[in-house]
Amino acid sequence: MSASTALLTDRYELTMLDAALRDGTARRHCLFELFARRLSGGRRFGVVGGTGRLLGLLREFRFGEDELRYLRDERVVSPEAVAYLEGYRFTGSITGYREGELYFPGSPVLTVEGSFADAVILETIALSVMNHDSAVATAAARMSVAAGDRPLAEMGSRRASESAAVAAARAAYVAGFSATSNLEAGRRWGIPTMGTAAHSWTLLHDSEEDAFRAQVDALGPGTTLLVDTYDIERGVETAIAVAGTGLGGVRIDSGDLPAVAASVRAQLDRLGATKTRITVTSDLDEYAIAALAASPVDAYGVGTSVVTGSGHPTAGMVYKLVARQGADGGWVSVAKTAEGKGSQGGRKTAFRRRTDGVAQSELIEVSDGFEQAAQPSAYPDARPLQVPLVIDGEPVAEHEGPAGVAAAREHHLRVREELPIRALALSRSDPAIPTVYVDAGDS
Amino acid sequence: MSASTALLTDRYELTMLDAALRDGTARRHCLFELFARRLSGGRRFGVVGGTGRLLGLLREFRFGEDELRYLRDERVVSPEAVAYLEGYRFTGSITGYREGELYFPGSPVLTVEGSFADAVILETIALSVMNHDSAVATAAARMSVAAGDRPLAEMGSRRASESAAVAAARAAYVAGFSATSNLEAGRRWGIPTMGTAAHSWTLLHDSEEDAFRAQVDALGPGTTLLVDTYDIERGVETAIAVAGTGLGGVRIDSGDLPAVAASVRAQLDRLGATKTRITVTSDLDEYAIAALAASPVDAYGVGTSVVTGSGHPTAGMVYKLVARQGADGGWVSVAKTAEGKGSQGGRKTAFRRRTDGVAQSELIEVSDGFEQAAQPSAYPDARPLQVPLVIDGEPVAEHEGPAGVAAAREHHLRVREELPIRALALSRSDPAIPTVYVDAGDS
Repeated sequence: MSASTALLTDRYELTMLDAALRDGTARRHCLFELFARRLSGGRRFGVVGGTGRLLGLLREFRFGEDELRYLRDERVVSPEAVAYLEGYRFTGSITGYREGELYFPGSPVLTVEGSFADAVILETIALSVMNHDSAVATAAARMSVAAGDRPLAEMGSRRASESAAVAAARAAYVAGFSATSNLEAGRRWGIPTMGTAAHSWTLLHDSEEDAFRAQVDALGPGTTLLVDTYDIERGVETAIAVAGTGLGGVRIDSGDLPAVAASVRAQLDRLGATKTRITVTSDLDEYAIAALAASPVDAYGVGTSVVTGSGHPTAGMVYKLVARQGADGGWVSVAKTAEGKGSQGGRKTAFRRRTDGVAQSELIEVSDGFEQAAQPSAYPDARPLQVPLVIDGEPVAEHEGPAGVAAAREHHLRVREELPIRALALSRSDPAIPTVYVDAGDS
Repeated sequence: MSASTALLTDRYELTMLDAALRDGTARRHCLFELFARRLSGGRRFGVVGGTGRLLGLLREFRFGEDELRYLRDERVVSPEAVAYLEGYRFTGSITGYREGELYFPGSPVLTVEGSFADAVILETIALSVMNHDSAVATAAARMSVAAGDRPLAEMGSRRASESAAVAAARAAYVAGFSATSNLEAGRRWGIPTMGTAAHSWTLLHDSEEDAFRAQVDALGPGTTLLVDTYDIERGVETAIAVAGTGLGGVRIDSGDLPAVAASVRAQLDRLGATKTRITVTSDLDEYAIAALAASPVDAYGVGTSVVTGSGHPTAGMVYKLVARQGADGGWVSVAKTAEGKGSQGGRKTAFRRRTDGVAQSELIEVSDGFEQAAQPSAYPDARPLQVPLVIDGEPVAEHEGPAGVAAAREHHLRVREELPIRALALSRSDPAIPTVYVDAGDS
């Protein structure tokens, strides 16, 4: 199987390209914008995820012999279009929000600029990556807020498609999780990995005691023992009997967690295992984590809810043409007006206005013209939100790979500090700050 | 990047393997079972998806130099375990439900048999594939039932992670969809692809008329024109003016669809375009499709809801040890008893009992012993549900590739006919048929 990512594309993009090559509009200079019309699920902020991953996939977005043969044999496009695609590489530019940055309705998360041919065929791959990773990052950030200083581990690989699982582990880490169970995410993105034993480990052995002893022999008393295969109280007793009061931790994966955590903590303390940590892992989401804030829990493991965006598995971002050359070569801002799905034409330059370091609004300057507007000086407290991501077809390397992930996580944790307190509540609401459009001429 | 799938694995599987190699339990013969405790979302039946894909991924489940280096450098496991993994390939056997088969709570969708070492490390990859693909297939089947004879196209790639999108297109096709917009799914799995133009096509041009004319010039009048970029009524008028009454179709992607479809149909008929088909594509799910049953719609395009399992993005299947060798080499059925997460020990042989061809129950014979139970003759109307999928490490090729997908789709459409009528309702309910466990000795 080829490593090309070029067919991770909806057919209509190539059909449009084909038709545009015939009528000459393929060469029109275009601006496409990737943005969310609203925040899913009444969330108060969104978190940009996937940018660095997208840049890596763009490097492989080339039509090789295998891809061209499929397009030719299936007559997806004309022979002329096949010939064009043979030499295709994206030669345009992309600016956008840093990975880990917060976004709000209308935030120009990515602006893709190039010929129509250049830019139209990136729609699916850009949306696939950004919608998925941002949905996970947004859910993960809410869990991270709810967990406070307690560490959160992502362990939901089994509840996501095998490749999405790796991307989800990465997005959760960007948004504040501290580790993942997924080894591929560890290898590919440099994320710390964790995990000790499943229920099958206990069931494999002739007794829970045998299982615990074998685990402690192999991994040392600092390991975490899973104590709920049969009866939690007896499990804890056996765990300390086998490992001693220096046991690193116990994991609880079932039951009414606030009650169970309290009773396990009391039992551990009675047994003298006052330093033994309690990790809980049973169907947690941001609400369950918040409900455990006062419980004696030391760490959380989160599965299904984080990898599926906690009820909102896609961020609902769209990819829209917002400006193009007209027949005379001049600039035309464009927007569709379809019911409930309108868009705002023109080039956007985005800032986060702050007062005393607290975010007040998402300020979006709208301009027309092929030149990027100069950074305005009228807003001294406004932080510019867009950075170059791809310049003349070349991805900016600092956003890619493990270093890009580490930078995104750091950026996220820093900009989250700018949010007003009300943004951190979990209940449904309007976005924490309003999006304000201004005409670039007005600033 | 290596093509190995071996690190699509939770760390704890390798940690358990490591410890089991030390205490000798790694060699114990084991039966793991992959099943769902319940059907998500009050669904009346589940659809098995992903089996063929899993077999392909298993072929690549080998630890190469890259994977071993990571495990060694990060000290994920001991040097002895790294040495073991260097030679690892799955040498056990897997039996299970055919892809496309229906499943119910407790159905032994997969039974994985081998040494503990052999079988324990397949947990994550098996669950990732089966949970995702079955969630999509189950949602897709409900949409397919709701659509009746009208064709359904999957076009949700942009709302799923880029690789999950390909798997989702495949699962939707298995469960009755007729096409996908995803080109990679077309190439890899032989699924018909479709798609013509987006709103950007209209916006690229100086007028809607120019856009329609260019599309018809390139693709012929049999194409489908997207008519809702500005105003639907004017869009339809322009479409017929440009393409003539032989226009293949119009697509509507916004608005109140029952009302809009009726008015567009009336307008097309008035204009003489009585054969022009109407495709609708705006945020459809199984309920919206059912609500359009009486509307003059010819085809549906479904995006977000099908690729995200229509509110249930994971099937919630688990992978549990159900039997193993004991210290004396004899058979031990095992089960955990954790609150709300119990499992049923023993080897399962599954049948669908039918009366006059209509499914009555999921009959599961539970036996102990290393030999597979003989097929019972006591139930003449019972259809055996399990087939060999992997034999002594070798995947059964008929389930793989495009041929496997075609067979799964055919199987699904056939076995769906066995369902009682009540199974086809969309509202929340108990499973359509009960799961009945019997002791193999009783049959």
